[in-house]
Amino acid sequence: MKIEKVNITEKLNQIHDLWNPRIVGELNGQHVKLTKADGEFVWHKHDNEDEMFLIIKGNFTMELRDKTIEVKPGEFIIIPKGVEHRPVTDGEAHVLLFEPAGTLNTGNIKNEFTKENLQKI
Amino acid sequence: MKIEKVNITEKLNQIHDLWNPRIVGELNGQHVKLTKADGEFVWHKHDNEDEMFLIIKGNFTMELRDKTIEVKPGEFIIIPKGVEHRPVTDGEAHVLLFEPAGTLNTGNIKNEFTKENLQKI
Repeated sequence: MKIEKVNITEKLNQIHDLWNPRIVGELNGQHVKLTKADGEFVWHKHDNEDEMFLIIKGNFTMELRDKTIEVKPGEFIIIPKGVEHRPVTDGEAHVLLFEPAGTLNTGNIKNEFTKENLQKI
Repeated sequence: MKIEKVNITEKLNQIHDLWNPRIVGELNGQHVKLTKADGEFVWHKHDNEDEMFLIIKGNFTMELRDKTIEVKPGEFIIIPKGVEHRPVTDGEAHVLLFEPAGTLNTGNIKNEFTKENLQKI
């Protein structure tokens, strides 16, 4: 296996769409992903996967059913399996995700936001 | 489960020693850890765990047996299980680690760098 470092900004520069995570790393059956986001995502949950959002840039808010948490660059939040959540941004935001390989971005929902067969970059 | 965001800088401000990772997050059987580092660590490998190093601050180099990779802030490197490696820094560096819960910092080696029963902060 070739071992190389990954530069987050360089990978983000290759992404020209929204809410479409790219796989940038894999370890222990987990994927490291990067996505650009803007606006309101869809309410959803993951029945079997915890999900971590590390904010790289932008104004990002995680809406939960009982509270809303603003997550700033340099901060992360972990959403446990089964918890309904909705990411919302004010303008473009850049997010690093850690989650099990195969996690569907819209969890239990399938709609126009759903992305399958994610690209590795 | 209480859902809270984590501010990486605030957590790092609570760390006043070197090469002593703290657990700052847990998901899917994996731990998110933060450590401060300075100087040369010990050569080691992890027989069963891949390990991710995301550099937050400082001049960090990952030495492998066949090459050396400088990993800058905003970059990460994944060391697959079984691969001998040695982290080295030039001055104090701050690192976020992502690896399976229970991963020993010195892998197959036990010496004065070994830290067990890591603290959660």
